[in-house]
Amino acid sequence: MAKSKFEYVRSFETDDTCLRNCYIVVRLDGRNFHKFAEQHQFAKPNDDRALGLMSRSARSVMEELEDIIISYGQSDEFSFVFKKTSTWFKRRASKLMTHVASQFSSSYVFYWKEFFGEQPLLYPPGFDGRVVLYPTNRNLRDYLSWRQADCHINNLYNTVFWTLVQKGGLTTTQAEDRLKGTLASDKNEILFSEFDINYNNESALHRKGTALIWEKRDETVSKRMKLPNEEEREVPVTRSRRKVEAYHCDIIGDQFWEEHPDILEDDNC
Amino acid sequence: MAKSKFEYVRSFETDDTCLRNCYIVVRLDGRNFHKFAEQHQFAKPNDDRALGLMSRSARSVMEELEDIIISYGQSDEFSFVFKKTSTWFKRRASKLMTHVASQFSSSYVFYWKEFFGEQPLLYPPGFDGRVVLYPTNRNLRDYLSWRQADCHINNLYNTVFWTLVQKGGLTTTQAEDRLKGTLASDKNEILFSEFDINYNNESALHRKGTALIWEKRDETVSKRMKLPNEEEREVPVTRSRRKVEAYHCDIIGDQFWEEHPDILEDDNC
Amino acid sequence: MAKSKFEYVRSFETDDTCLRNCYIVVRLDGRNFHKFAEQHQFAKPNDDRALGLMSRSARSVMEELEDIIISYGQSDEFSFVFKKTSTWFKRRASKLMTHVASQFSSSYVFYWKEFFGEQPLLYPPGFDGRVVLYPTNRNLRDYLSWRQADCHINNLYNTVFWTLVQKGGLTTTQAEDRLKGTLASDKNEILFSEFDINYNNESALHRKGTALIWEKRDETVSKRMKLPNEEEREVPVTRSRRKVEAYHCDIIGDQFWEEHPDILEDDNC
Amino acid sequence: MAKSKFEYVRSFETDDTCLRNCYIVVRLDGRNFHKFAEQHQFAKPNDDRALGLMSRSARSVMEELEDIIISYGQSDEFSFVFKKTSTWFKRRASKLMTHVASQFSSSYVFYWKEFFGEQPLLYPPGFDGRVVLYPTNRNLRDYLSWRQADCHINNLYNTVFWTLVQKGGLTTTQAEDRLKGTLASDKNEILFSEFDINYNNESALHRKGTALIWEKRDETVSKRMKLPNEEEREVPVTRSRRKVEAYHCDIIGDQFWEEHPDILEDDNC
Repeated sequence: MAKSKFEYVRSFETDDTCLRNCYIVVRLDGRNFHKFAEQHQFAKPNDDRALGLMSRSARSVMEELEDIIISYGQSDEFSFVFKKTSTWFKRRASKLMTHVASQFSSSYVFYWKEFFGEQPLLYPPGFDGRVVLYPTNRNLRDYLSWRQADCHINNLYNTVFWTLVQKGGLTTTQAEDRLKGTLASDKNEILFSEFDINYNNESALHRKGTALIWEKRDETVSKRMKLPNEEEREVPVTRSRRKVEAYHCDIIGDQFWEEHPDILEDDNC
Repeated sequence: MAKSKFEYVRSFETDDTCLRNCYIVVRLDGRNFHKFAEQHQFAKPNDDRALGLMSRSARSVMEELEDIIISYGQSDEFSFVFKKTSTWFKRRASKLMTHVASQFSSSYVFYWKEFFGEQPLLYPPGFDGRVVLYPTNRNLRDYLSWRQADCHINNLYNTVFWTLVQKGGLTTTQAEDRLKGTLASDKNEILFSEFDINYNNESALHRKGTALIWEKRDETVSKRMKLPNEEEREVPVTRSRRKVEAYHCDIIGDQFWEEHPDILEDDNC
Repeated sequence: MAKSKFEYVRSFETDDTCLRNCYIVVRLDGRNFHKFAEQHQFAKPNDDRALGLMSRSARSVMEELEDIIISYGQSDEFSFVFKKTSTWFKRRASKLMTHVASQFSSSYVFYWKEFFGEQPLLYPPGFDGRVVLYPTNRNLRDYLSWRQADCHINNLYNTVFWTLVQKGGLTTTQAEDRLKGTLASDKNEILFSEFDINYNNESALHRKGTALIWEKRDETVSKRMKLPNEEEREVPVTRSRRKVEAYHCDIIGDQFWEEHPDILEDDNC
Repeated sequence: MAKSKFEYVRSFETDDTCLRNCYIVVRLDGRNFHKFAEQHQFAKPNDDRALGLMSRSARSVMEELEDIIISYGQSDEFSFVFKKTSTWFKRRASKLMTHVASQFSSSYVFYWKEFFGEQPLLYPPGFDGRVVLYPTNRNLRDYLSWRQADCHINNLYNTVFWTLVQKGGLTTTQAEDRLKGTLASDKNEILFSEFDINYNNESALHRKGTALIWEKRDETVSKRMKLPNEEEREVPVTRSRRKVEAYHCDIIGDQFWEEHPDILEDDNC
């Protein structure tokens, strides 16, 4: 096909290939989700419909970009980890992060109804993203731990804050003042002694966020077959399928990683 | 708020600030839109509902990111141009392109119904994006000219191809063979002599694509006011509002730019 | 030639091509030149041998990398400007800056004797460098103005400081205290009223630094030739040669640029 | 100190920090060293003076930039490896590579006389450089293996080629033709059967290149001291000093790395 004399402008594009043999993390953050949550009457401190929609959208991203080995989300953010050896989009950072941002955002609107039913979505929401590289398993696990620690810190705060407001009858300003300077132990104590709430019994989804990983599941399906010397009939067939599974557990300690040894690759390669 | 020991992982983020005093172009391209178009029965060679939805989504991006001075789209792609002096997201390339990709994609699903009515969207579509910098007006205009020349080349081809198939009764393979090696003039001639079609009278939307720019419009609204020594009453008030306007015209030549002298900034700054 | 299985490591190299149509500036700065100056007994506040050697080395760089259109130096730094359209090293930033740093440094040692005679160079000096891009003539001129303004500020300070010490008999600490908080006008006044020195009559080399540019010079050389119907004889031949010329003048105002209209390229390309 | 209005140009600098927790390799290559070698009558196929000068310059770089854990050179190239945790120059790629290029180049001229005696250096030589990051020990070792395999391939070729010319009486063109398409085994065979040369007995410096590493050495120096109740006298004092040591051995296999376990850092950090 004929090329135009304007073609030279292509040479202004720069190469942003991600360094090889590193985990590629794409993190998305909701834009102005404070306002978005208010306008859509999200429950406080956590709205399970909203969290479910975030996970559903993340699952849609993972099913589309198969080199993602784990994703982790909490609140209005989600992180996606591409395997070290991924050659998706030739490892071009811009392609990777825009495709993730795009697929997540279209899914968020597409699946809205599944989680919010007849409550209408008032306007199309926005997310922004970034790419970060991690050379070792330690660095990657520390990244995920950082996000889960953030989840914990925020959720503990929000749980006490909204309990003080919703059950304790404080204004938001009063609750804020009450919590100024308190430690985690102070917050646990307020919940326990004043409201008879054991924070550790609160929903794991809220306390730990959501980790999505691929798991192989054996599935038995029945298939119409004609075996030799027989009539055609339904035969049960077992096949292995990769499926995205959700976990709301601690991913900071070793247990989760020991139980799922296939997620991370060997460091010494 | 307490910081975790994992905080150090933040230092792995790299800075991708766009060079100052350059136009920042974000271009989005549909992912697997060939298949998407088929599955949603897009009309051939152009589906006005789909083109309308692309423009509607682009408008949504422009209204959200006000530093975009012009955007141009055709087929399943759209380019967004940020002004040279933009400091949106501190000019961080990753933030700019992911936000554009996200806002465009969520809008595409959100506004689907406005253009496709009861025809359902079967799955959430994906777009990928990239960032390119252009230092001068000449370079930027050549970029936009490149995209419009691409629109012209593709649309002329597709118009003849589908006319041969739809009106000429050729198979797609026959149409392909027929067009192999033909020049633009040959294609125009086939349309004219065999089908009595003057390509230049075809829809400008299809031939030229869509340029979206900001325009100031004077608007007269009536406002209830109380003027001195008068009863309160409705008073007509004129105010200037910036609005996104669509053009389907040539943007390669000088005329468009002379008629809209405010789009580009001075080169000599 | 046989390729080894280790060859894959090449793919870890990243592309650092400089954005097209921008001026590429490489600036070098002496490493620990304070100590270097002391150990080699540089005269205070300016050592003409050292400044001459810097310029000689810069000239060597320009003669080696012909796309440099202007270079500017002062104290222990030198900036080199590549033309917008340069394709030297395919515009790879790393190659450009390392070659400049290397050529400058080897020249500094190579030409040492020309400027310092029998005084020995005690150890090989080091310079570090960086690359900065400027899209417009205004930006580039402002960059060069920034460096010349820096030269002015430092040289005025150093001139007064060392005059107070060398002619005024102050200790360095006393001189420092004396100058704390003084404006340019105060410093000029100290020089004039106390030491009868008009700063503007000081050496232009010290006040303005050194700009090196290419100039065409007509040269008459005599060549042995045999013209038709004549004996072979010496004939004067004029030829034009590009030569690096040094200027110690203001480059902040317009005059220098008007007198050398060929240095900068047109902005509107 | 007063800031000028031109200061804004600093914001055009971009950040080129190297990804953390990766080895940083700076490789230098001689510019036009084929011509340089000819003009300075380098012996063929290897000039020990030139190789010695390269190593001496590399040593000078290592002594200046202490975070370099190993450097490896052959022919007119030298690679420098910074430790993963280095924060030298805040890991800014441009600073690291220009400083290495500068220090190496000034040292090359500075130490010329030590290796070439009265043979004059005709002009200042140039080197260019690049930066490459390697996330794991495997990747880094494969990089160094790649360079040593390159040394082997080139040196075997050059050894046979120049033997054919110098002892075999072939022209360079004849030698070239003779070697076209030959394998390593063929080349070894030519050397052995025709010239009675066992390639493996050739100089290790030529076959293996030069690896420079830091080693701790105990040194006994005598120091004048006054011990309690004694006259002042010379006392032998043992102290540990880090010194750059040269190796001309295989660095592809495991032995070298097992014998020097301190060079590489742990992968799992």
